This record gives sequence, structure tokens and C-alpha cells, in this order.
Amino acid sequence: MSEKPLILVTNDDGVTAPGINALTEVACDFGKVVVVAPDKPQSGMGHAITINSTLRVFKLHEENCAMRYSTSGTPVDCVKLAVNEVLERKPDLILSGINHGSNASINVIYSGTMSAAIEGSMEGIPSIGFSLMNHSIDANFKASKVYARKVIEKVLKFGLEPGVCLNVNIPNLPVAEIKGMKVCNQANANWVEEFDARTDPSGEKYFWMTGKFVNHDKREDTDIKALKAGYVSVVPVQYDLTAHESVKKLRAQF
Amino acid sequence: MSEKPLILVTNDDGVTAPGINALTEVACDFGKVVVVAPDKPQSGMGHAITINSTLRVFKLHEENCAMRYSTSGTPVDCVKLAVNEVLERKPDLILSGINHGSNASINVIYSGTMSAAIEGSMEGIPSIGFSLMNHSIDANFKASKVYARKVIEKVLKFGLEPGVCLNVNIPNLPVAEIKGMKVCNQANANWVEEFDARTDPSGEKYFWMTGKFVNHDKREDTDIKALKAGYVSVVPVQYDLTAHESVKKLRAQF
Repeated sequence: MSEKPLILVTNDDGVTAPGINALTEVACDFGKVVVVAPDKPQSGMGHAITINSTLRVFKLHEENCAMRYSTSGTPVDCVKLAVNEVLERKPDLILSGINHGSNASINVIYSGTMSAAIEGSMEGIPSIGFSLMNHSIDANFKASKVYARKVIEKVLKFGLEPGVCLNVNIPNLPVAEIKGMKVCNQANANWVEEFDARTDPSGEKYFWMTGKFVNHDKREDTDIKALKAGYVSVVPVQYDLTAHESVKKLRAQF
Repeated sequence: MSEKPLILVTNDDGVTAPGINALTEVACDFGKVVVVAPDKPQSGMGHAITINSTLRVFKLHEENCAMRYSTSGTPVDCVKLAVNEVLERKPDLILSGINHGSNASINVIYSGTMSAAIEGSMEGIPSIGFSLMNHSIDANFKASKVYARKVIEKVLKFGLEPGVCLNVNIPNLPVAEIKGMKVCNQANANWVEEFDARTDPSGEKYFWMTGKFVNHDKREDTDIKALKAGYVSVVPVQYDLTAHESVKKLRAQF
């Protein structure tokens, strides 16, 4: 690459989240960085896009080392707006996060952080999502920054296969206690919902979605298992949802 | 199955859309049907869930053959609320649609209709999403109903593999002109965005997301190709996003 890499940083916790500052600081060591992130928290937005209402882009100020923009949209909207309207050219790398909280297992499908990375890969741009296993606003991103740097170095060196982005989860441990990185499969684990039913001041019922996380997966090489053992998990994620192994079987039935 | 199947019908166009009426009518021939659908259009919501605000469930009235509920949430919220709060037991089948407009190709990832079906499969329930290649409110669902019936019959007879749901797209043709059904792969096609920039009455800029659909996929067995040739496309869809073929290659790099 003759030119300095152009790096887009986004997230789903919103442009003011400490996690996006941590990621921006790391990104600045690798190229020219522009931040385009939601103007409010967008956790759980999955791959949502805004097609039935309007979108706004707000130019903020330069902070640390990067120009910052916020948008009224979802994380996926941010990627689309950045690539098409904000950046002067297609970025060389998209970084999403660092998310305050886990995005391991098949729950990636709900994640705004990872959906931004997946959208990047759909547009042919090498993309990585980062998440720290601590959802506190005061989470310590020191170890996350060390490992974000390692992962970015590898992606810039080796590239990524077409149609694939990376999902990186970092255990909530001091850097000295993290055992290294492991390439894993998504664990087949999920949230079992328990809706917390309440009554509003007018006497009407409403719900909060809540639940408990249950891991059904006994395999050794899942992200959940690696994280529990103190490793950073790295999962290659694809946007092709075709269940290729089922195609042949179904053809006999249809 | 000794008991009559319990069938949940949902969609992303909202509880009042003609497409969900068409699907409900077909569903009633196969079991006891309950409709739980969004109270407003939720197209493009992907796999979004509502975790930062409250959810409401509204009991409506029985129409045709099914009790109807609407919710303030996304299509995925509807499935979670139906399974956990509305239905008396886990449903035997989830049907989503019939969507007003295509959900073919890798664009499934943006689709509220298909995300409801994917959520069903994550909860271990056989699930099918249906879409008609006509987004008009006045679309004619006659042929769609014929093919929805055929697909439901097959799924009740053969079942579906764990972790897999079906994405069924129906060409906008009279039933006599439809050539049959084809099991396909998702085409690697997508929308190339063009943001329509406008100025509001206060002089501030805003955007509408728009674009054109581009098919990059030359393979013979894609859903886009089948639909163009006059077939109903049936694609098995999975929620495991692990790029399994990349895992080994990445292990050599990390």
C-alpha cells in the first residue's frame, strides 16, 4: 500500500463511548482514521438499516487523532453513510467497537458492533469487530488495546478472505493474565428470554426483555470455551447465510 | 403429532398488511394459528431486538381463523414475546410473511421477515419466511398462497434440520406461469447505496437511503437466477455465522 491506510472506526455504543476512544487510539498508529458512529447507543440493533425514515450526519470535532462524525442511524447505516458520503474514498480497513460487553457465540446476529463489521465485508472492505467482556462504562480497555493492535497487524499483513470479517472478543483480565489468541467457532449458546412484566402508571402492562445466557455447545473449539480459559477469541464470520450442507438434502424433498 | 399443530404467524410489514392475511388463511388449514406481528412496518430491521426500551403487547380481535396480537417491537421481538408470553406452549411451526417485496440473495441479513424465521430456528422451532416479488400494498397473493401451502406441507412431512430455516421467494406471476420450486443458494447480490441528499425547511441536510440492486453472482443455482426463470426459490438459511472454511487458514496466521 503506497498511501497511508484509511481506517473507518465505528461502534454500537455510540460516539461518546470510552470503547470507541480506545479503538481510535490504536487505529491511529496504523493510518488515517475517521470515526463515524451512532449519536446514541444502538446495542441489539443487529443488521438493521433505516429505510423508512431520514438519516442525519453530524460533523463533530477532531479528538486525539481522528475526525469524528455521528449519525442518527444504526451501526450498519454508519458504515453505508461513511463509505458513500463522509469518506473521500473507500476505506482500507473498518474497525468496530470496542464494544462494552461480550459478542461471543451465535449471539453475533443481534450485535450492532458485529453487524457494522459484517456490512464492511459485504462492501469488500477488511473489517474487524472488537468486544470486551465487561459492559461497564468504566471498563478497563488496556488489555483490549494490546490485543486489538495484534489483530490489526495480522489483518494488515495477511488480509482477509472475501466475504469474511473477524469477531474478536477479549476476556476482562489484565494483559498479563491473558493466555493468547485462539481462532474459534461460534458457540451454539444463547439467551433464554424471561420477560420482566411491569405495570405503568396508567395500569397498563409492559415488558423489559431479560434472560439468562445458556451454552448448549460441548465442542472444545468454541469462542465461549476459549474466553473462559483466558484466551482472546477470534472467529471468522461470514454473511452468506446459505446452509450449504442442507441444500442437497432439500433438493431430494422439493 | 397427536395434537393439532400450533402455528405462529408473524411478519415485518405490520399486523395490518395484506400479506400476513394471505399467510394466515393458508396456515389455518394446517393447525391452530395465532398472529403476533409488529404494530407498524419494520422493514429493514434485520435481527434487531429491543433491549434499551420497553415492549408492549396489544390483544386485537380474531379475524378469519386466528387470534391476533400486535407488539411495539421488531419482528424478532414478536417471536420472543409470542413464544414466552402470548402462546400457551412452544409453537410447532413459525411462518413469517408473506412479505411485500423480495428477500432473495444475501440481502436476507437486512430482512425483518427472515430474521423472525431465523429467530424461530434459534429457538428450535421449524420456521419459514415467505416473500412475494412485488412490494405493492395491492400485490396479488394468489400464487403465493398456492406455493406457501406446498412448502408448509413438505416441512410438516419432512421437518427441517436443526439450525436451519427456509427462505421462500415467489415470483410475481400468475400460478400457471410459475414453473415450480427450486432449492438454491443465496446469490451474492446486493444494493449499491446512493444516498439522496435533501435540505430540510431549516436549511439542514438530511439523507434518504436508496440505491440499485446489483447481482455479482455468475453461479447457475442461485435464488436470483431461479426467480428470473420463473421458479419459486427455496433457500435453507442458518444462523451459525462461523466461516468454517476460514478457520483452518486463520489458525496458521494467529
